[in-house]
Amino acid sequence: MTRPRLTALAQSLPATVPFVGPETQERQRGRPFRARIGANENGFGASPRVADAIAASAPEMWKYSDPENFELRQLVAAHHGVAPENIMIGEGIDGLLSLVVRLFVEPGQPVVTSLGAYPTFNYHVAGFGGRLVTAPYRDDREDIEALLEAVKREAAPLVYLANPDNPMGTWWEGGEIQRFIEALPDTTLLVLDEAYTEMAPASSRPPLDPARPNVLRMRTFSKAYGLAGMRCGYAIGEAETIRAFDKVRNHFGMSRMTQVAAAAAIADQAWLADVLARIADGRRRIEGIAADNGLAALPSATNFVTIDCGGDGAFALKVMQSLIDRDVFVRKPMAPRLDRCIRVSTGPEDELAIFAKELPGALAAARGN
Amino acid sequence: MTRPRLTALAQSLPATVPFVGPETQERQRGRPFRARIGANENGFGASPRVADAIAASAPEMWKYSDPENFELRQLVAAHHGVAPENIMIGEGIDGLLSLVVRLFVEPGQPVVTSLGAYPTFNYHVAGFGGRLVTAPYRDDREDIEALLEAVKREAAPLVYLANPDNPMGTWWEGGEIQRFIEALPDTTLLVLDEAYTEMAPASSRPPLDPARPNVLRMRTFSKAYGLAGMRCGYAIGEAETIRAFDKVRNHFGMSRMTQVAAAAAIADQAWLADVLARIADGRRRIEGIAADNGLAALPSATNFVTIDCGGDGAFALKVMQSLIDRDVFVRKPMAPRLDRCIRVSTGPEDELAIFAKELPGALAAARGN
Repeated sequence: MTRPRLTALAQSLPATVPFVGPETQERQRGRPFRARIGANENGFGASPRVADAIAASAPEMWKYSDPENFELRQLVAAHHGVAPENIMIGEGIDGLLSLVVRLFVEPGQPVVTSLGAYPTFNYHVAGFGGRLVTAPYRDDREDIEALLEAVKREAAPLVYLANPDNPMGTWWEGGEIQRFIEALPDTTLLVLDEAYTEMAPASSRPPLDPARPNVLRMRTFSKAYGLAGMRCGYAIGEAETIRAFDKVRNHFGMSRMTQVAAAAAIADQAWLADVLARIADGRRRIEGIAADNGLAALPSATNFVTIDCGGDGAFALKVMQSLIDRDVFVRKPMAPRLDRCIRVSTGPEDELAIFAKELPGALAAARGN
Repeated sequence: MTRPRLTALAQSLPATVPFVGPETQERQRGRPFRARIGANENGFGASPRVADAIAASAPEMWKYSDPENFELRQLVAAHHGVAPENIMIGEGIDGLLSLVVRLFVEPGQPVVTSLGAYPTFNYHVAGFGGRLVTAPYRDDREDIEALLEAVKREAAPLVYLANPDNPMGTWWEGGEIQRFIEALPDTTLLVLDEAYTEMAPASSRPPLDPARPNVLRMRTFSKAYGLAGMRCGYAIGEAETIRAFDKVRNHFGMSRMTQVAAAAAIADQAWLADVLARIADGRRRIEGIAADNGLAALPSATNFVTIDCGGDGAFALKVMQSLIDRDVFVRKPMAPRLDRCIRVSTGPEDELAIFAKELPGALAAARGN
């Protein structure tokens, strides 16, 4: 049948999703998970003040949102000690990543990232016709020397680095990141994804430098602030780089409710501190569960712990699948060497207790016992 | 200073917004509007059940949304008597328009719309390097014969038509739209923007035909359902055309809260019917205010009324500005001939009463009295 023709680029793209959601798995399985600790969500939840603010503003939702995100930008800027002109709000870091690729990558141009890093970034690079150039992890960390070498070799306009990283939970000290930044060509834009940074040591953060045009620091309300469902991320950067988003973004794309929720969340730093403590406890709990089963947990600066299952990728895949069969939602890295691990998010004790109870059986099943 | 270079296309784009929001105007004015009747928002608001659902789900917002929008698609599909495969959910019609242009328009290709129609559509066409081809309105309606002629002359892959239209509020009967659809080349995709259709006569809607690959019907929760702030629109179309969105969309881009709100809204059709009656009353009220001032209101099938100010574009601009100076937020068409009008949204009587009170003074000021 004759039909409208997709662009050549769109024709080349698969209709796949970067991640299958747990709800999809639940529908396929025909029953819910008992522990939802696979998507690095924050089961400790957002501040109760956020729920109050949401309920109070519900009757106002007939109004479009402020396309400038003015109030939220003021709050975020004040929190970080930068100007509102250094802040861009978007529909999660995912939404901002799409815009960054669109703004800075011509079709065919190289984009550098680590092999096994964030699939959604890769999805957006493919979606705008960029050419992915990857450097493997080294000792379970992103290899910043190799990334730098790839950037220079390819004269890449864009490089992605997460600190702490996902899916391994490892990190670099801020001084190392700063050396990486200073060694980059001025014409290469670094997307420094700091989705998990609130949970990481302060020493892992290089100083904010809103005068530098080639670094965008990406932050989110999805992780430490417990608002993954509301979709709010932000970029911190130099004013002209930030202004470029205004050329292409969906100006009325932010939900007004999300603006309300994020503003309430950032205002309650006491709640954040409490959650961070609970996340640290959760990491220790997961490390203990791993040790009880003779497995090694990687050091983590995030709200998840990556566990080395002690075998190859096929074995870890069986462990993950056995956990899912036992109604425990977890995920795992897929890149070579990293794939020997599973990845478990911190969460309330009742969910971690289910994980603790089911892991021995899952390991036995994976071993064919 | 050397800095990351924008793509050639991005360099060519201005950092402008399709619309300045009323909050921006309020900040510039230094005081709030007393009547917010300029953005075709629905001041009657959403069903109270929506607010209840929002409040109840607030503690769940630590979870990412279902990237398949499964439940909402089921509800929307059932409402329209089509299959869920015929429904794509997006961050407002605006978000879907961006994806449609990205999927179907190569840089340099022609895209047909009416001169003075939806600026945000034009913004997205420019944003992906499409070339706008416009046909003027005729007798204050989109000129479907001229649009068809332009499509054929240019062999355009995409054409935009709104029914009822914005900013004039006029409409075509469904039979006329159906003839337009059937006359289109199979390779031209029609975006039929029906944002206001719930407020229009049933006879204005051609039958849904989810077997036809070259028509996308765009609907929204922003207007009749009173949820502009939540950002939820949807496309109804043939399954393969709908699936194309999965190649490029931000799969986790929908707010989970928006999924909850939209599901509650579509379930309360009794509220919708009540709001539609109040909107019809509001139209009559605005028509009466216009008549009281010696002005003609255009017939409207929307939640706004376009008023012919009886002069040229410069005069109508003065009327609008005078109303804004009197704390009444209204907007106006900008294209030649259409620009003789101002556009006033229906809303609660207290806001329309302010409009009624201030219009005579605004007209006098515009006339230089």
